[in-house]
Amino acid sequence: MIDTPATPLNQEELQALLEQLAKEAPRCFGEGRVASYIPALAEVEPDQFGIAVCHADGRVQCAGAASTPFSIQSISKVHALVLAMQRLTPEEIWSRVGREPSGQAFNSIVQLEVENGIPRNPFINAGALMVSDMLTSRLVMPQHTLREQVRRLAATPTIDFDERVARSEMDHKARNAALAYLMQAYGNIHSDVELVLDTYFHYCALAMNCVELAKSFAFLANRGVNPNDGTRVFSEIHTRQMNALLLTCGLYDAAGDFAWRVGLPGKSGVGGGIVAILPRRMSICVWSPRLDSYGNSIAGRHALEGLVSGLRFTPMG
Amino acid sequence: MIDTPATPLNQEELQALLEQLAKEAPRCFGEGRVASYIPALAEVEPDQFGIAVCHADGRVQCAGAASTPFSIQSISKVHALVLAMQRLTPEEIWSRVGREPSGQAFNSIVQLEVENGIPRNPFINAGALMVSDMLTSRLVMPQHTLREQVRRLAATPTIDFDERVARSEMDHKARNAALAYLMQAYGNIHSDVELVLDTYFHYCALAMNCVELAKSFAFLANRGVNPNDGTRVFSEIHTRQMNALLLTCGLYDAAGDFAWRVGLPGKSGVGGGIVAILPRRMSICVWSPRLDSYGNSIAGRHALEGLVSGLRFTPMG
Amino acid sequence: MIDTPATPLNQEELQALLEQLAKEAPRCFGEGRVASYIPALAEVEPDQFGIAVCHADGRVQCAGAASTPFSIQSISKVHALVLAMQRLTPEEIWSRVGREPSGQAFNSIVQLEVENGIPRNPFINAGALMVSDMLTSRLVMPQHTLREQVRRLAATPTIDFDERVARSEMDHKARNAALAYLMQAYGNIHSDVELVLDTYFHYCALAMNCVELAKSFAFLANRGVNPNDGTRVFSEIHTRQMNALLLTCGLYDAAGDFAWRVGLPGKSGVGGGIVAILPRRMSICVWSPRLDSYGNSIAGRHALEGLVSGLRFTPMG
Amino acid sequence: MIDTPATPLNQEELQALLEQLAKEAPRCFGEGRVASYIPALAEVEPDQFGIAVCHADGRVQCAGAASTPFSIQSISKVHALVLAMQRLTPEEIWSRVGREPSGQAFNSIVQLEVENGIPRNPFINAGALMVSDMLTSRLVMPQHTLREQVRRLAATPTIDFDERVARSEMDHKARNAALAYLMQAYGNIHSDVELVLDTYFHYCALAMNCVELAKSFAFLANRGVNPNDGTRVFSEIHTRQMNALLLTCGLYDAAGDFAWRVGLPGKSGVGGGIVAILPRRMSICVWSPRLDSYGNSIAGRHALEGLVSGLRFTPMG
Repeated sequence: MIDTPATPLNQEELQALLEQLAKEAPRCFGEGRVASYIPALAEVEPDQFGIAVCHADGRVQCAGAASTPFSIQSISKVHALVLAMQRLTPEEIWSRVGREPSGQAFNSIVQLEVENGIPRNPFINAGALMVSDMLTSRLVMPQHTLREQVRRLAATPTIDFDERVARSEMDHKARNAALAYLMQAYGNIHSDVELVLDTYFHYCALAMNCVELAKSFAFLANRGVNPNDGTRVFSEIHTRQMNALLLTCGLYDAAGDFAWRVGLPGKSGVGGGIVAILPRRMSICVWSPRLDSYGNSIAGRHALEGLVSGLRFTPMG
Repeated sequence: MIDTPATPLNQEELQALLEQLAKEAPRCFGEGRVASYIPALAEVEPDQFGIAVCHADGRVQCAGAASTPFSIQSISKVHALVLAMQRLTPEEIWSRVGREPSGQAFNSIVQLEVENGIPRNPFINAGALMVSDMLTSRLVMPQHTLREQVRRLAATPTIDFDERVARSEMDHKARNAALAYLMQAYGNIHSDVELVLDTYFHYCALAMNCVELAKSFAFLANRGVNPNDGTRVFSEIHTRQMNALLLTCGLYDAAGDFAWRVGLPGKSGVGGGIVAILPRRMSICVWSPRLDSYGNSIAGRHALEGLVSGLRFTPMG
Repeated sequence: MIDTPATPLNQEELQALLEQLAKEAPRCFGEGRVASYIPALAEVEPDQFGIAVCHADGRVQCAGAASTPFSIQSISKVHALVLAMQRLTPEEIWSRVGREPSGQAFNSIVQLEVENGIPRNPFINAGALMVSDMLTSRLVMPQHTLREQVRRLAATPTIDFDERVARSEMDHKARNAALAYLMQAYGNIHSDVELVLDTYFHYCALAMNCVELAKSFAFLANRGVNPNDGTRVFSEIHTRQMNALLLTCGLYDAAGDFAWRVGLPGKSGVGGGIVAILPRRMSICVWSPRLDSYGNSIAGRHALEGLVSGLRFTPMG
Repeated sequence: MIDTPATPLNQEELQALLEQLAKEAPRCFGEGRVASYIPALAEVEPDQFGIAVCHADGRVQCAGAASTPFSIQSISKVHALVLAMQRLTPEEIWSRVGREPSGQAFNSIVQLEVENGIPRNPFINAGALMVSDMLTSRLVMPQHTLREQVRRLAATPTIDFDERVARSEMDHKARNAALAYLMQAYGNIHSDVELVLDTYFHYCALAMNCVELAKSFAFLANRGVNPNDGTRVFSEIHTRQMNALLLTCGLYDAAGDFAWRVGLPGKSGVGGGIVAILPRRMSICVWSPRLDSYGNSIAGRHALEGLVSGLRFTPMG
């Protein structure tokens, strides 16, 4: 039995593809709206697009506004889960949060009550609040530690929280507070709810650009080793598991549609970023602020469809 | 950028692995129960195990009771969807059934009412009944045509329905009848409900063995071409899409857990069979009748985990 | 302690009130729509109104189109439950159907699944189908027996089913079939589903006018004794229980609003009829075909509000 | 038309009945459990029983531990709604909370999300929090004003909050905080959530005995006039509406069963108290701490059934 992958694109071909995608992105600028639930996000200029690829060997290629920082929002849920999986036992994590697609909107509270305060997965808000509680309870400085981790993963020591976004999130905390208090009512939140929310909102308020995000996810495209500094972040098994979880649960209740169209593990944020993984090959970050009704970047998803078409290879066949 | 897959197992190594898995399967025989909602399934001897692999080039390897026929049940939902995707336009199919994980048990009716009679995906019962209605409305002999298709895919002209199972299903039709009538109440079933149920129950009542099932799914491991006769079944894009759908929705509300543990597109049936795809490499069928609480074969899933471990390669990294 | 009811209206005063209500009814004719889910109901001339009162001593007063027959639809659910309470033990009935308001639309299927096939109360469709099953299983001629009962209660031997309506209901059975099959899947329907539907649709297809309906409910205003022939239909306790059930569950998910506005036990039907009880005093039937979004007669409910205002006495204070 | 009520019991007969009910109450002491979600309630001696009646003319009769104070808990939801109905317009109240039975447990959050943050009625926790928000937003001293109102209604100037209970509730606020934050997320809470919770928990922490509670509800049995001081609290229409609301929604998801068995408007609290109204005749308060699974006093409900039997008169016939 011999594996015969399609001939991969060379560096120039890929660069041409990325630039073409950046050029075509404005076609999507007529649709969708920038996230508006907090002022700090509502002010973002909507018609922007950036794309960056980080190869499994650490080389980076990009096009468009790939150096413009944006609020990574829910993409940070992956960074937080990575930290939790490094520091806690599987039993400590998976007894408190599931690994199944939710079949509900990202911030739904219904499922949480029906299933007694156990969130379906770590990528819906309730699940990410649960992970934030795990880290808040376990780490001395949960915000500092995550920031250090992200800086190391991206090999970029300047990455930081946007405090204005974090404060703005806290001012509009009502729904996330409802989720956290409901889980506390079931005995599943161990730290103070206000503290957990502060941790969570800071994670969401990380400001990064496409290049930095792609680099920070490169270890998932390299069997767990960060190509930027050669350190092992995850075992091979953890890497596989995380990619599988991203494929089934990474795009909320549009996960099935994203798998159908793009076929890659991925995670989106309402700041307009989407990160995707082509296992053993590359991590990708696209960014464009206009969102569809599920909270996913419209131009971002289109670009990923185009990239996969052009690569002539996906994990799905 | 160079793809560097782990060295794949050679034929002897894979054969040794399959035989080891068959030998270890009895460890799972203490758990779970055979499906008992119809007498024809309840009578099956529970402590059996078979495994078969069909390589992308058509070679077959197997171990255990790989030639013992069993009721393929929900695995037929894939064969039916393949037929629908060949005969109907995407619009005709996807306007009537979704592509998202359900987040509910396979035969739940709640989601169907909340979402106005549109099933979440074609692999929960409601969605499969919808596909059965599409085929019943479109084909002159929907049962005959599917049987011909499966025979051709598996290159086995003797495959047939187990009429006793089909009748027994019809005698216990209540829940599926409820699902079909509810969809009809929303205007989404076009043929007579009794006729649709008859089609559906016959599809479920196909009797096949592991070798035949693995062969009938080999085209999904070969970019859409059936290696058993060289004919193209699906385009490359359809192939990718089907594999993605199997990964996110193939194992009911245990799809996330299966992706986490096994990481392959797959489909299970309450007859104890599970089919899985390693894209561009092989299709796999395992069978063992004892089921977990989600309706998935316990020994089957364990064997697939062992197989993936041994192969040292998955689409997830 | 002495009870001091407001001086009741005398016969002339009540007659004047009824005629005034009939005169004012056309003010509501601009709103709402006739039930249209079956042709036989959709054809009814919408701008009609009738009202009839049957005193605890059997005297009848009426105004408007009180002699025009209409399809009593869900009002028959009360007649059927009376029959069941006469023929079956409380345990036989209340182990299979609840006595709580549903908090859902009358034909919702969600609650039924969440609560394992036990309908919330006998006045939502699922509950009435359950009662129909009880009568179908127990009586030799369930349709004949109910018709005889209604004729006797109303002292009107000519009351009959409208076979055209019954057939039309059967032609559009999908949602009720879904409810019945789902209950059968939980083991809670004992007769053949098609037979149960036939019984149920015939009950709904009884054609009666306001005078006949008011008379058929008079025993509930007379401590269980039918004033039309002096026979006891119900014990005092059964009478109280039925009135309480009508107050909490008689108008579907508008039961609370009806209690708030009218304050009487009542039951509505999508044919436009509403029956209400002023315990120890009178039964009332109003009819007008235009329905609100809950399926209740708009002019009917307005007239009942006006009647209660004019009577200066309600069971609520 | 002449109203012929059953001859009411005279004073001695009623006294004998009350004493008999107190004597029989210990038969229920084997079942149920004292509320235990906060320590202050869990410590209450479970095997106690008291009953008091306040006639429409203000006379009081009682038996058992009718002078022992207990935590009135949810019974205060009625006092709070009375205050809101006096101070706010119907539109201000009923645009923000419904009047329908919930069909769910008293502290369920599911319905709230499905119906966009509008609680079903003012007697489930979410609805009472909404009323607390209305009063917190409108009144300068919402706690002081309610306490004054209850003291006036009961003609007892010593009634006060149990601050230990109020603090204990605040320490275990998680589920109510979740409800309040979720409503705030829908824009339906106008004051600060912590402030609303403080108001709400103080209302629940009122300590009263059976005699005081019966007196504080006597105006609902006297067409809106408080017989203890002759002042009008409610119009006749408001009185009727409140009684109707109590009948359909006063006992959470056991409202239908309570109406069936007792047939009176009523409100229960997890402190073991139940208040009921016999319109135009008397208000009743029973108390016994052991609760059934719905949170209603077991011995209390039994005693009310016995009382209604003995009175030979109910609003239901």
